[in-house]
Amino acid sequence: MSRVRVHNFSISLDGFCTGEGQSLDAPFGHAGGRLHEWFFRTRTFREMHGDSGGGTSVDDAVARTWEAGIGAEIMGRNKFGPQRGPWEDHEWTGWWGANPPFHTPVFVLTHYPRPSLEMEGGTTFHFVDVTPQEALRQAREAAGDLDVRIGGGVATVREFLRLDLVDHVHLAVVPIVLGRGERLWDGLEGLEERFEIESVTTPSGVTHLTLTRR
Amino acid sequence: MSRVRVHNFSISLDGFCTGEGQSLDAPFGHAGGRLHEWFFRTRTFREMHGDSGGGTSVDDAVARTWEAGIGAEIMGRNKFGPQRGPWEDHEWTGWWGANPPFHTPVFVLTHYPRPSLEMEGGTTFHFVDVTPQEALRQAREAAGDLDVRIGGGVATVREFLRLDLVDHVHLAVVPIVLGRGERLWDGLEGLEERFEIESVTTPSGVTHLTLTRR
Repeated sequence: MSRVRVHNFSISLDGFCTGEGQSLDAPFGHAGGRLHEWFFRTRTFREMHGDSGGGTSVDDAVARTWEAGIGAEIMGRNKFGPQRGPWEDHEWTGWWGANPPFHTPVFVLTHYPRPSLEMEGGTTFHFVDVTPQEALRQAREAAGDLDVRIGGGVATVREFLRLDLVDHVHLAVVPIVLGRGERLWDGLEGLEERFEIESVTTPSGVTHLTLTRR
Repeated sequence: MSRVRVHNFSISLDGFCTGEGQSLDAPFGHAGGRLHEWFFRTRTFREMHGDSGGGTSVDDAVARTWEAGIGAEIMGRNKFGPQRGPWEDHEWTGWWGANPPFHTPVFVLTHYPRPSLEMEGGTTFHFVDVTPQEALRQAREAAGDLDVRIGGGVATVREFLRLDLVDHVHLAVVPIVLGRGERLWDGLEGLEERFEIESVTTPSGVTHLTLTRR
């Protein structure tokens, strides 16, 4: 059975995965880049965006597990873009340019379906107004024997965790107190009973949490 | 200048330092002992309570920094006991028996003063209805050249942090999602600008955070 995985999901000490005030100029609101500095410095991130360089430390090793064995992604509409409500037009094709770093089918959960969007490099966005369970069924079908990534945003990851649909989670706890934004842990009391949790701090100051379903 | 220190303060992944429903039988509410298992296993904890045994790992080494160089403690009324409002009587003398592990003057912040309480082993509880700043002035005077510990509970630590009265904080992040209780981080947005934060995970699964004033 293919697994359902979450990767490279950064979280502040106070449990926020994004700041307040998401917009076109500020995809993570007032958090800016602070939650992802550790990630920007990795070779994995550089390569995802067609750049060279970047570190090859344990941060990079953990970040790189993002890619292998993934056959489809599910993301919430809020990860796809800053618009809310009905699509004003179909001009917006995501934050990632003509060749997004997914290279698989991506199922975007939205109450406002629109035609699928075939991008360069193997990424196709499908816009689906379905339950998480049904999105997972479709993603699994598209993924074949491979795994399904839950890509975010925060509400989407939280909902899949709450419904116990996730097998593996990688969180990176960043030592900042964000104060405002969207919390991951709400409604997930006792999550540790369902997962083995491993914590490893690296010299960047980030603590990698790996949650593996028991 | 003597420093103001917080030690061995456990916190869940979701930022709670105590659970919901503190009572005589459950000093940490529904959290039970889950936040402090790492601490119970240390030699430091055993010795504090007159027992022998306990581990001497890095958890113990960090826990032991609790004691050295402390000349006074400040605690909130909610750490001293489960009663709220006016004292019904003066029978309650804290959770810690005849010989509490503090061995210094302890200033208990309360709106309901009562006579000082001299215990065995050098601990004297003073009940003071004053501002945090004034409590710190009194504690510093009592401590001489030594440091002052802020002992908790959560609201007291949070308030001293908010007022920027703290020089050193040791938190132990325990990999559980408590869901309910009292949060430490509320109102402390941007705390990392005032502190160097070091994170170290130990084999017990706890991540020790050390915050040192910049």
